[in-house]
Amino acid sequence: MSALQHPWSTWRHVVKLDPDKEIGNDELIELGRSGTDAVLVGGTQGITYEKSFLLIKRLHQFAPDLCVWQEISDQHAVVQEVDGFAIPVVLNAGSAEWIIGRHIDALERFGSMVPWQRVVPEGYVILNPEAAAARLTGALCSLSPAKVIAYVMAAERILGMSTIYLEYSGIYGDPKLIRQVRQISGAHLVYGGGIDSVEKAVEMAEIVDTIVVGNAIYDKGIDLVRETVLAVRSLDL
Amino acid sequence: MSALQHPWSTWRHVVKLDPDKEIGNDELIELGRSGTDAVLVGGTQGITYEKSFLLIKRLHQFAPDLCVWQEISDQHAVVQEVDGFAIPVVLNAGSAEWIIGRHIDALERFGSMVPWQRVVPEGYVILNPEAAAARLTGALCSLSPAKVIAYVMAAERILGMSTIYLEYSGIYGDPKLIRQVRQISGAHLVYGGGIDSVEKAVEMAEIVDTIVVGNAIYDKGIDLVRETVLAVRSLDL
Repeated sequence: MSALQHPWSTWRHVVKLDPDKEIGNDELIELGRSGTDAVLVGGTQGITYEKSFLLIKRLHQFAPDLCVWQEISDQHAVVQEVDGFAIPVVLNAGSAEWIIGRHIDALERFGSMVPWQRVVPEGYVILNPEAAAARLTGALCSLSPAKVIAYVMAAERILGMSTIYLEYSGIYGDPKLIRQVRQISGAHLVYGGGIDSVEKAVEMAEIVDTIVVGNAIYDKGIDLVRETVLAVRSLDL
Repeated sequence: MSALQHPWSTWRHVVKLDPDKEIGNDELIELGRSGTDAVLVGGTQGITYEKSFLLIKRLHQFAPDLCVWQEISDQHAVVQEVDGFAIPVVLNAGSAEWIIGRHIDALERFGSMVPWQRVVPEGYVILNPEAAAARLTGALCSLSPAKVIAYVMAAERILGMSTIYLEYSGIYGDPKLIRQVRQISGAHLVYGGGIDSVEKAVEMAEIVDTIVVGNAIYDKGIDLVRETVLAVRSLDL
């Protein structure tokens, strides 16, 4: 991927929508007008094909111009009608299963059908031990800064990954640590977790390539999306 | 690495030397004259810094023109005086530890000192359940051809690895399966295991990029190296 442009290279602001959470049609229409670069459909708990398909179908219906990607956590929930697929590799998972085991099981069955040019593998480091994804994958989350750096280095230099996702899921991360990662990393860096204000969006967008606004929109509404998009855009002027 | 030439791109024939096994000075001199492209110093059992250092020192002394790389299985055995380092990622290991865990522990301590331009990460698939490396890493070795293909696909397309090492360690592999892997893989493909004759060396060298002649030299002597080098060279004429 190093020689080609990263498929997410122009993404500065992304919204993550959870198929297991409710969102109204009016909000989807507003989301389509918000100016966010893409919607990533995915979650950890209660993810089924039906729920994923329904949300993606409604996105196409109510926000037809939005770029929609699915983040795959279960091979049975894969929905074809998206612009691309994000595939998490949980670098600090407690077992082989969540690093690469499930992927291999899926590839054994569907390997020849994967549209690789529309796939972005994400090297996840989950940093909030209370997050559902951390519990599910048995992630080792109590990591020193040096350890986080080592995970990122291993992902890029040993495995060869070109996208790193620092996931605080539900809590706001430490900008100092994210900055340290940025200094040693040449990957496309994604930050997610606890972005519930313009200030936090700006702070993280100044460091990483892409910020993800997620759960907070279910509390604060699509206003948060519109405001953080505007703030990130003015950063880049 | 895709944009750059692979550091092993010209390697067709490699000898693996085990620091835990005995080899005489005369044999090292003969090895230096054999025409093999490189020596990979590494093993699974009884590997210490002292044994590794001594073998590498003797290689420099008795076969000074040989290209010598160390394959690292233990961070405490790393010897600086080599041309490069191969870092195994055991794709089918039973636990996270042997996929990427030990690497992260090592990078946490020595990450800033790694000469990355002289490092080749190897995506290992261990295919002989009786091999010491398989037992050590708890590798899942009873793999269908579809599963082996899935491992290779995951290593290249999801993790981003550019070197795949199919390791039968001690037994001779199935050329049909290796050919299937070659068909779906764009990686630098390495084959090792059971090459104890010119015929086997040629059969595998016709399929993969690099063959590794290993344990058999401890039984058959350096003649095996010279003869298999000649055979592989005439393949490429």
